[in-house]
Amino acid sequence: MPMAPTVTPLRADESALAAVRYDERGLVPAIVQDAGTGAVLQVSWMNERTLRRTLAEGRTVFWSRSRQEEWAKGDTSGNRQWVREAYHDCDGDVLLFVVEQEGSGACHTGTPTCFSGRPLGAPAE
Amino acid sequence: MPMAPTVTPLRADESALAAVRYDERGLVPAIVQDAGTGAVLQVSWMNERTLRRTLAEGRTVFWSRSRQEEWAKGDTSGNRQWVREAYHDCDGDVLLFVVEQEGSGACHTGTPTCFSGRPLGAPAE
Repeated sequence: MPMAPTVTPLRADESALAAVRYDERGLVPAIVQDAGTGAVLQVSWMNERTLRRTLAEGRTVFWSRSRQEEWAKGDTSGNRQWVREAYHDCDGDVLLFVVEQEGSGACHTGTPTCFSGRPLGAPAE
Repeated sequence: MPMAPTVTPLRADESALAAVRYDERGLVPAIVQDAGTGAVLQVSWMNERTLRRTLAEGRTVFWSRSRQEEWAKGDTSGNRQWVREAYHDCDGDVLLFVVEQEGSGACHTGTPTCFSGRPLGAPAE
């Protein structure tokens, strides 16, 4: 069996959390990036409560807009994401989590990332 | 003087473009990632027209929500972004551009990325 990933909870920086700007639904998009490869894995949504859970539990927890419920990534699939670094952007309306991805990948479609194999175009000949 | 970056226009894949889902304002968020370092540089917005311009011109062009106008990144600052790869995600509501960043950095605040030095928390002691 592979070794279980290390869990590293992050103590919230309250002034940084106060800089996060939620939209009219109380949500903010969260980019998830692989700590090892740098690949952008997915983008999902957090509210303040799931953001705080993510930091405290050291793994990503999102808000599912379709199911209208909290969603601890990987509880069903095993593809949990262990947080190594967490940032907000300059105007506070996007979050970035650098994670160790457990399991087979990030995307529910089975691809390693949600962007894998989905090019918008190719270099002209 | 540094050599001018190579421009590599991308020929749009029409079936991929048809898979992009714009929000009620006709916009989709676009993540920009540095091709060399893998760093996530910024997130901005595109409409269909600026997405097509981005592919055709081989550099990022966004829609400014505050100014309500097209915004070719770097026209003022010189910090242009030369597109090397472009993707949509599994449900078509996020775009990802892998770019060569020209100039001093991506963020209008002067930091290399919009996430630089803006941590949400730190590992507990």
